[in-house]
Amino acid sequence: MSKTIKKIGVLTSGGDSPGMNAGIRSVVRTCAFHNIECVGIVQGYQGMIRGEFIPMDARSVKGIINKGGTILKTARSKDFRTKEGRQKAYENLKQEGVDALVVIGGDGSFTGAMIFSSEFDMPVMGIPGTIDNDIFGTTHTLGYDTALNTVVEVIDKIRDTASSHDRLFFIEVMGRDVGHIALNVGVAGGAEEILIPEENLGLDRLLESLHRSKNSGKSSSIVIVAEGDKIGKNVFELKDYVDEHMSEYEVRVSVLGHMQRGGSPSCFDRVLASRMGVKAVESLLEGKSNFMVGLLNDVMSLTPLDQAIKGQSKINLELLRVSDIMTT
Amino acid sequence: MSKTIKKIGVLTSGGDSPGMNAGIRSVVRTCAFHNIECVGIVQGYQGMIRGEFIPMDARSVKGIINKGGTILKTARSKDFRTKEGRQKAYENLKQEGVDALVVIGGDGSFTGAMIFSSEFDMPVMGIPGTIDNDIFGTTHTLGYDTALNTVVEVIDKIRDTASSHDRLFFIEVMGRDVGHIALNVGVAGGAEEILIPEENLGLDRLLESLHRSKNSGKSSSIVIVAEGDKIGKNVFELKDYVDEHMSEYEVRVSVLGHMQRGGSPSCFDRVLASRMGVKAVESLLEGKSNFMVGLLNDVMSLTPLDQAIKGQSKINLELLRVSDIMTT
Amino acid sequence: MSKTIKKIGVLTSGGDSPGMNAGIRSVVRTCAFHNIECVGIVQGYQGMIRGEFIPMDARSVKGIINKGGTILKTARSKDFRTKEGRQKAYENLKQEGVDALVVIGGDGSFTGAMIFSSEFDMPVMGIPGTIDNDIFGTTHTLGYDTALNTVVEVIDKIRDTASSHDRLFFIEVMGRDVGHIALNVGVAGGAEEILIPEENLGLDRLLESLHRSKNSGKSSSIVIVAEGDKIGKNVFELKDYVDEHMSEYEVRVSVLGHMQRGGSPSCFDRVLASRMGVKAVESLLEGKSNFMVGLLNDVMSLTPLDQAIKGQSKINLELLRVSDIMTT
Amino acid sequence: MSKTIKKIGVLTSGGDSPGMNAGIRSVVRTCAFHNIECVGIVQGYQGMIRGEFIPMDARSVKGIINKGGTILKTARSKDFRTKEGRQKAYENLKQEGVDALVVIGGDGSFTGAMIFSSEFDMPVMGIPGTIDNDIFGTTHTLGYDTALNTVVEVIDKIRDTASSHDRLFFIEVMGRDVGHIALNVGVAGGAEEILIPEENLGLDRLLESLHRSKNSGKSSSIVIVAEGDKIGKNVFELKDYVDEHMSEYEVRVSVLGHMQRGGSPSCFDRVLASRMGVKAVESLLEGKSNFMVGLLNDVMSLTPLDQAIKGQSKINLELLRVSDIMTT
Repeated sequence: MSKTIKKIGVLTSGGDSPGMNAGIRSVVRTCAFHNIECVGIVQGYQGMIRGEFIPMDARSVKGIINKGGTILKTARSKDFRTKEGRQKAYENLKQEGVDALVVIGGDGSFTGAMIFSSEFDMPVMGIPGTIDNDIFGTTHTLGYDTALNTVVEVIDKIRDTASSHDRLFFIEVMGRDVGHIALNVGVAGGAEEILIPEENLGLDRLLESLHRSKNSGKSSSIVIVAEGDKIGKNVFELKDYVDEHMSEYEVRVSVLGHMQRGGSPSCFDRVLASRMGVKAVESLLEGKSNFMVGLLNDVMSLTPLDQAIKGQSKINLELLRVSDIMTT
Repeated sequence: MSKTIKKIGVLTSGGDSPGMNAGIRSVVRTCAFHNIECVGIVQGYQGMIRGEFIPMDARSVKGIINKGGTILKTARSKDFRTKEGRQKAYENLKQEGVDALVVIGGDGSFTGAMIFSSEFDMPVMGIPGTIDNDIFGTTHTLGYDTALNTVVEVIDKIRDTASSHDRLFFIEVMGRDVGHIALNVGVAGGAEEILIPEENLGLDRLLESLHRSKNSGKSSSIVIVAEGDKIGKNVFELKDYVDEHMSEYEVRVSVLGHMQRGGSPSCFDRVLASRMGVKAVESLLEGKSNFMVGLLNDVMSLTPLDQAIKGQSKINLELLRVSDIMTT
Repeated sequence: MSKTIKKIGVLTSGGDSPGMNAGIRSVVRTCAFHNIECVGIVQGYQGMIRGEFIPMDARSVKGIINKGGTILKTARSKDFRTKEGRQKAYENLKQEGVDALVVIGGDGSFTGAMIFSSEFDMPVMGIPGTIDNDIFGTTHTLGYDTALNTVVEVIDKIRDTASSHDRLFFIEVMGRDVGHIALNVGVAGGAEEILIPEENLGLDRLLESLHRSKNSGKSSSIVIVAEGDKIGKNVFELKDYVDEHMSEYEVRVSVLGHMQRGGSPSCFDRVLASRMGVKAVESLLEGKSNFMVGLLNDVMSLTPLDQAIKGQSKINLELLRVSDIMTT
Repeated sequence: MSKTIKKIGVLTSGGDSPGMNAGIRSVVRTCAFHNIECVGIVQGYQGMIRGEFIPMDARSVKGIINKGGTILKTARSKDFRTKEGRQKAYENLKQEGVDALVVIGGDGSFTGAMIFSSEFDMPVMGIPGTIDNDIFGTTHTLGYDTALNTVVEVIDKIRDTASSHDRLFFIEVMGRDVGHIALNVGVAGGAEEILIPEENLGLDRLLESLHRSKNSGKSSSIVIVAEGDKIGKNVFELKDYVDEHMSEYEVRVSVLGHMQRGGSPSCFDRVLASRMGVKAVESLLEGKSNFMVGLLNDVMSLTPLDQAIKGQSKINLELLRVSDIMTT
């Protein structure tokens, strides 16, 4: 039987994503609803080690549901990778009276949470917060939907200038290990090709595709490139390569970068964050631990943290085919 | 055995929604991909009766994936409710050589399609296009996600002025029969109360809730009201009622209206439209008829049109509870 | 010779507008830059009477430049219209050590400031903050540019659905006394007609214009109506009138309302607010009083408050002509 | 006395900018209003040489006022720099019956227009279309206001992630020769420093400023860098330099690039484009030639093309001071 939980700590960790604030708000208000205390932990595990805690009541999260970033800040913590760091963190939590943790973050953050929870008697629940959507056990991570819209709006803008000048653009979007963002914004942005980590199109087929596109009467084109694509060249080298092998296009590059992490969360991400915060806190109150809250078949569900970490988030192969058909 | 399909007609019908153009584009390009012809039918069934057809090839739908509204236009057709009207429509289709139809619209449009298909030998597939998300057989209709974001952005703006003036706003959003929009934007917009057709909160409980909110230290509040809510008063009468019974608030009303139908579709709606168009055309080519394409558990699926029409799209009751917790 | 100013009070008053927070930030930081103290006064004159002051240093206005509304809140104050109210306000300011005031607001707020300044020895500077742009002595008030963009984006959305359905929309925008918003968004939104307080088009000419538009091949139309237009009918009566006299159009109405006041300020409004705050504080420090800061010929300038109040903000008649030509 | 003008050609040239389409629309409709013909010339001077003309009537520019880019496309033309090229262009114009030209573009485009007009008997009027605002004779070029808003929205997004991670960002914005964009978005985005071509801050003062900012309690910072800044290092070298000399910050870089050229034009740019198109056409009809239409003191005015080219667009030094004060 689990001990009674009287105070929950919440933190954000790893890269920030839109919806993290909405998640914090939900955790805090669900605690208030159940009459338990809540403290925010500043800068993730780093703040746990430094003992930086902020008491949070229902009013303290007022007006943040629509704000990007995270009011609790986030950081990567080297110290938390040491036993001494985690020991210090545990002592701080005990002194503060924290009985359980909600960790909003990605893979790395969950690994830390699992180790911590196994070493000390501290129930933990994870909420997947990352724009990359690279977590197993949920169809959507917090911030993913917002990032998709952010990127698509930028592609629309680049399309304006691409077609005015009859240019070819390589647009690099986030996604080191998975191509979710690239694949979806590629379809939504009407891209000619989509280069993702899961597939190596090859330079020959890329050229072929661009030639075919040009011949079919298109005067401008957009190619979406995920950071982690496997074609063997970065986006600037790709430009040079195409410049060399195709005189038909003026080629340009755009690297979207960090803007993809910011912005006011979409309706979907705000609702998802609200649901996840409720599920995380109530699962802790039910005595559960070491799970990640996720959205599966539109329903809140729990996946053991170790599975969430080890499992692979797979791209929707159907979308690759849809993309091919759309570029007919 | 079904006859071979050589030419598909596509039309939009009923209230327009963002993503309809992306849906048209997908139908047209999927036809091109499979080397069959495609014609656009102007103004829905009305154009079928008038014989207004536009040949559409892959290039003809260029640059429309991100445009709101529908390039094929839409209308409600009284004539199509008569046998004569439908007969005339059929003759026009035959003359044009159209072998099958893709109908993008809502309940009413699907009813028309079913009747037409039963009377004449014309395979039909439906794509659910409406912002209300009130169709059985799909978790998301085309335009619904975009409308949610449109409404949430407006709520954010109204929140700015509401909290500057410590006011209470009643905001009316679309939803005659179902509360999907109201429920989601209510959670995402941090609304104090959400009035939906599926539930009659009652005036007493509304007042109670507003009093509780005021006492908890909130200085401004937002109440989301679906058009079809059952509280027995329209949004202006609600304002008067609360004005009478609560002196604590200055009350204001905002009716969002038709702007909810417009705007560039979200990434989600563009991808959904692209997937649905492929599925609709390829299902016809496989000899299927009288189905609606839908998204169920993130997978493209088919629901018989009669079930789509008779079935009920149910709101997520979990969200009502989440909303209650969030307004702690 | 003016006394030395050691502490400045800043308040927002009247209807809120985007850019007020950027204005507060600028006043606070300019005070910090010149090593004088600054206090925020909550809810305008009402907070002066209640003695609600918040000390503000440079960091206290962090992160507000892009937020709509006003963190100091605003209210209309009946009490400040009485001699007793103003006496109380003055005593509170004296006790707080406030030597001078910056009032961000509109006509009414400036009138209060002038009376107050004449009764008591308190230098005041006005910053014009209102979306209506109805203030003499500045080509742009704070929030006006943002409101224009907000309204135009909504018109674009309504245009999507209007042209999908071949409808005529009457869209009511803010502007009780002046037609600045209506005139600009009418041109920018491609409106068929623009009804403003400064001109009475007359119902006959409106009908004529709509008929001409229909005959010229346009299938949908938008008419922008300022709240204070002089055609003698409100926007719903206008709809009924046109419904009666023209069968060619399905007519719809959209009243934009309070959303026009909210939203993140545009680049222009943020820069304008920053410039105005500097000018207001530095003018006080130079011993000036009873002026409004304004933008004239792209340069910061001062207009005596009484002229700002009595003078008339005139619409650009050239725009009416441009609008006529554009609807050719 | 000038000959009677019966047909005007309109073209866009140089880098595209939001509002060019609104400008084309205005030229076309003003022609229609005055019952003269109008032809669009595709891809600027290149299309003149190829003889690619499109007849344009009032309806042909429907629905483009809110579209980014240019429907007439744009290109840089080497051939137009040769006498032979211009001769060919003139012959094509004569054959097409074009009596006068409206050129929408920047410095380079105007130089071409001037030479062409001096060699052949062809009246020309220029409309300044470029996001850089680097043209003498107008306070605003077409697209500048839109670009400012585009950039500021991106800075807001980057600010979200910068402050979540306590990072320093160098954000590169357009501006090879002038710092208008950098200066305005720097003030509007709350940047710590703004590096512009007109001023060399120097690396030492940059470091000083960043140290001062850190010491004043700011945990994150944004530095805006115009492409053409004179500090002697590109934005990536700047990052490396600061990385080396300051351990206090994690530094990141974002290069905004071509997205700055796209997007739906702001209300201001649409109105400006509409006014400029009217002024350009009517000036031609009045027999004027070789002028650029501009906005000076909020009034449409004409500047001789040679002055527009030779003159210098100066940044507002007041803004540099405002920026300094705001970073107190």
